[in-house]
Amino acid sequence: MRIGILGGGQLGWMTVLEGRKLGFEFFVLDSDPKAPACRVADAVFTPEQVEVFAKNCHVVTCEFEHIEESLIEAVSHLLVPSHHILKLKRSRIEEKSFYRKMGYPTAHFSFAKAKDLLHELKEFRLPAIVKSEKLGYDGKGQYKIEHTSQIEEVLKNHSPQENFLIEEFVDFLFEFSLIGVRNKRGQVRVYPITVNYHDGGILLYNYTKNIQIKEAEDIITSLMSDLNLVGLLAVEFFFCKDGKVLINEMAPRPHNTGHYTLDGCYTSQFENLLRAIADLPLGSTKLKLPSGMVNLLGISLEDMDMEGILSMEGAKLYWYGKEKRERRKMGHINVVGETQEQVAEKIKSILELLHQRI
Amino acid sequence: MRIGILGGGQLGWMTVLEGRKLGFEFFVLDSDPKAPACRVADAVFTPEQVEVFAKNCHVVTCEFEHIEESLIEAVSHLLVPSHHILKLKRSRIEEKSFYRKMGYPTAHFSFAKAKDLLHELKEFRLPAIVKSEKLGYDGKGQYKIEHTSQIEEVLKNHSPQENFLIEEFVDFLFEFSLIGVRNKRGQVRVYPITVNYHDGGILLYNYTKNIQIKEAEDIITSLMSDLNLVGLLAVEFFFCKDGKVLINEMAPRPHNTGHYTLDGCYTSQFENLLRAIADLPLGSTKLKLPSGMVNLLGISLEDMDMEGILSMEGAKLYWYGKEKRERRKMGHINVVGETQEQVAEKIKSILELLHQRI
Repeated sequence: MRIGILGGGQLGWMTVLEGRKLGFEFFVLDSDPKAPACRVADAVFTPEQVEVFAKNCHVVTCEFEHIEESLIEAVSHLLVPSHHILKLKRSRIEEKSFYRKMGYPTAHFSFAKAKDLLHELKEFRLPAIVKSEKLGYDGKGQYKIEHTSQIEEVLKNHSPQENFLIEEFVDFLFEFSLIGVRNKRGQVRVYPITVNYHDGGILLYNYTKNIQIKEAEDIITSLMSDLNLVGLLAVEFFFCKDGKVLINEMAPRPHNTGHYTLDGCYTSQFENLLRAIADLPLGSTKLKLPSGMVNLLGISLEDMDMEGILSMEGAKLYWYGKEKRERRKMGHINVVGETQEQVAEKIKSILELLHQRI
Repeated sequence: MRIGILGGGQLGWMTVLEGRKLGFEFFVLDSDPKAPACRVADAVFTPEQVEVFAKNCHVVTCEFEHIEESLIEAVSHLLVPSHHILKLKRSRIEEKSFYRKMGYPTAHFSFAKAKDLLHELKEFRLPAIVKSEKLGYDGKGQYKIEHTSQIEEVLKNHSPQENFLIEEFVDFLFEFSLIGVRNKRGQVRVYPITVNYHDGGILLYNYTKNIQIKEAEDIITSLMSDLNLVGLLAVEFFFCKDGKVLINEMAPRPHNTGHYTLDGCYTSQFENLLRAIADLPLGSTKLKLPSGMVNLLGISLEDMDMEGILSMEGAKLYWYGKEKRERRKMGHINVVGETQEQVAEKIKSILELLHQRI
């Protein structure tokens, strides 16, 4: 079977590396032939070649939801997860409105055009979070507003007609995520909970926690079914101080908080994505060992204390081979250990090693 | 760092897939551009291009010891493990004589030219094992002699000047192997023991066993040091009915009995090979979970009960994408489980599924 991937980033790269083992071929579409997934693909196509790409793939998936509409349309008959899910994800306002319509719990929110932002903000107790409607990932276009005077600064980066989502600030106890997978025949599996730690809107590290939050599991299972999703769904949640669980956001693709599954679980999120879209039985999402992950942000291989990191028992490096940019995700380190505490200790040591050298 | 691999088989393929994660580039030399490792390499070279290949690699390793002498010589200044170890491995007689010279325990053996085989066999109690000196792997050129009358049949396949190794037949309790790794700075790690089951000279399945055989661990550690080896060393042993441990043979490369390490160990044999030759600290060889492996011999993807196999919790398929030939190693299935018994049960089920459909 030949699988097409829209986007050549690290999510596609890990999907290809895992999928090789199942005997699949991979065509990757990206404008940059040096992108991680392109370097391990059987063939690489530019966006202009999307018709040939589509003609030669049995199924197409994507590793990034912010893809040009024309590309999505050219492959929509082959696309898994399907077009309507990606569309929903491309607007923060549509996504949140969907949760509201379907009765899923979220923080209180509203939306407004840039020019009406100040007015709408008056309905919120500050601090509040203001997010641009489009291209929302890794904290991009996202602002924490402590005082209305900050709005002037925000508007400098945006046109008056741009739409914004305004959210009540959630003073959560912790952030966690669940990743679920659903195949064509409706079989469903959910991975263990991970607790996630962000730094400036970008995931810095996460680790598995031996707790079950039934409410969240019910939400993700029901979301996959409501969306009639085939593939992966990652859902980020807030666990609030009053015990409430709120959806922060979802992503219908491999997720950064699931990278640990490559070393920590019976079946990785990448393999399960492929099994789902290839109409194969899903693999077990069970944990082999307590696990975690540290993102390598804006660092080069030379900057890193490789000796220190590779000497750590159970640390596994994934280096994406991308050009270094400030705070860019350059790679990650998966960690396994015998206990949760051991994993947390190792993550702490890795973070220390990284800071030592940056 | 750019790593060259002599040979494009599945051992190279898994080395490349693992090595991508560490950020290495791979050049592969093989006469068949469709060989598994070639399909995932950054560049592929034919044997005629060995000079260019060598000029562009920082280090060269091999995934098969039966490589033409001229190729080995062209890369010998970059070759890890080094030339002398490969040479030793290319003659069954030299290999066994080395063990004898160094005082390592082996079955009683002798050697003779084809024309003198019958005469030499008289010194042995039958059954005995007769093996051609060269190209010995997967049971090739290997004969179990129950009666001297069989020799006539053996000699039909060989020239009178060909050398043969004659070994006493070992009525062992079980076969097991150890895989060790040693890096440039002399750091050493040894993987857990696996018990191995062969079928007609080809490994059919193996699994980890929670026993330690100190004598064998001492042998492999001392062998790596005697050989001044950098890289992997797999040693196959017989555990005899009288409690003795004998060396059957060794291989200075990733080994079929170590495929389980990809899913069962903190660090796979392939990653540890790369760490060793790249002068990096070795990774932990600890077991995550009891593990095993089943080889897929002479089967096509279409022949397989994929539904059955992929439905099994903890079964992970590795499909090499080679052309089907009788008894050829086409892929393998790694298995993990919570207990040794569970792993053994799963292996049994896989073997049953495979037989059902072959």
